[in-house]
Amino acid sequence: MAEETYEVDEILDEFLKKQRGVKDTLKEMKNISELMVDLAYSAILYNNDELAEEVHSLEEEMNKLRYQIEIGTMLAARNPEQAADLEGILRVAAVAERISNAARDLAELVLRDIELHPALRAALEEANEIVTRIVVADKSKLIGDTVKHVRTVEKFGMDVIAIRREGEWILDVSDTEKIKAGDTLIANGFKESVKHFQKLAK
Amino acid sequence: MAEETYEVDEILDEFLKKQRGVKDTLKEMKNISELMVDLAYSAILYNNDELAEEVHSLEEEMNKLRYQIEIGTMLAARNPEQAADLEGILRVAAVAERISNAARDLAELVLRDIELHPALRAALEEANEIVTRIVVADKSKLIGDTVKHVRTVEKFGMDVIAIRREGEWILDVSDTEKIKAGDTLIANGFKESVKHFQKLAK
Repeated sequence: MAEETYEVDEILDEFLKKQRGVKDTLKEMKNISELMVDLAYSAILYNNDELAEEVHSLEEEMNKLRYQIEIGTMLAARNPEQAADLEGILRVAAVAERISNAARDLAELVLRDIELHPALRAALEEANEIVTRIVVADKSKLIGDTVKHVRTVEKFGMDVIAIRREGEWILDVSDTEKIKAGDTLIANGFKESVKHFQKLAK
Repeated sequence: MAEETYEVDEILDEFLKKQRGVKDTLKEMKNISELMVDLAYSAILYNNDELAEEVHSLEEEMNKLRYQIEIGTMLAARNPEQAADLEGILRVAAVAERISNAARDLAELVLRDIELHPALRAALEEANEIVTRIVVADKSKLIGDTVKHVRTVEKFGMDVIAIRREGEWILDVSDTEKIKAGDTLIANGFKESVKHFQKLAK
């Protein structure tokens, strides 16, 4: 969710609706954490505010997942023995969230315009392959294209590593996924490809 | 380095020898951090002590890199203006290390044998694809094989995601890399493949 705040009822509803187990929730936390670390470092390396902002959005998602795990374990505990069993999961969720908090703080440095050494900035401008954020406009030519097309289009292929759609993150982006208006794509590619796709996204 | 402690002189020597810039060091920190997060979560998800131990080894590597960045920036500062410019880099390195510390703490939970919920353990035993650590013995059949061979060998392909060799980590493992005696492979594959490769590694 892109919203800054969310309602307890809403999270609980979603949790109960999905009936997702702790294992699946942990797997999703894993995927989100890896993407956060990737984007936080990339934000620093390419001095890119947009990527830093996406790290914030992912951190909201992590908070929500931790909350779901907490609610889920509490609801699952029916007696003191079960509660003791479940306590380990709460600890895992707490430590896991620290990874995402640290990634958020790393991205925060970019948003606060900390001064990076001029030599580092110069080196970055020379970088060939970069990670970027592409927002798909309402009348973009990309709408309806598959991710496979974006990944393999002649000369200008970009690897789509994540999509944010209506506040939800898609992290395992399959080739058959179709691009929709309003999608935010996180993608990896050569500078020329990035320019090309920024045009197509408009 | 696999050793628990290391000498300041040794680190400084390595830094000066490599003449590696801050950008390359940050890129290496990025790669190591991503692998640490992957392995820390995998250690939890598969309840695997060996993966947790590798997270510790990677954290040593991160500490070394942070130290190299600190030494490098101090040596580069020749006047107050330059020193102010360089201060941002020190802050980046400090926050970056917090990510790896959190990943280490997550892995630590596995080594401390925290109790995970029985339902989670059961679910894990059903998992098809797992991350594993394979140590290549002196007379293993794998010695001399390329990583490409390991990745594509009929029925039993395993994706090698990292190699630890003589205390150094190889994180971008190319297809042409040859496997040596004593290598520790971090690899991803189906349960059957894991069993097969554990045999070959002996």
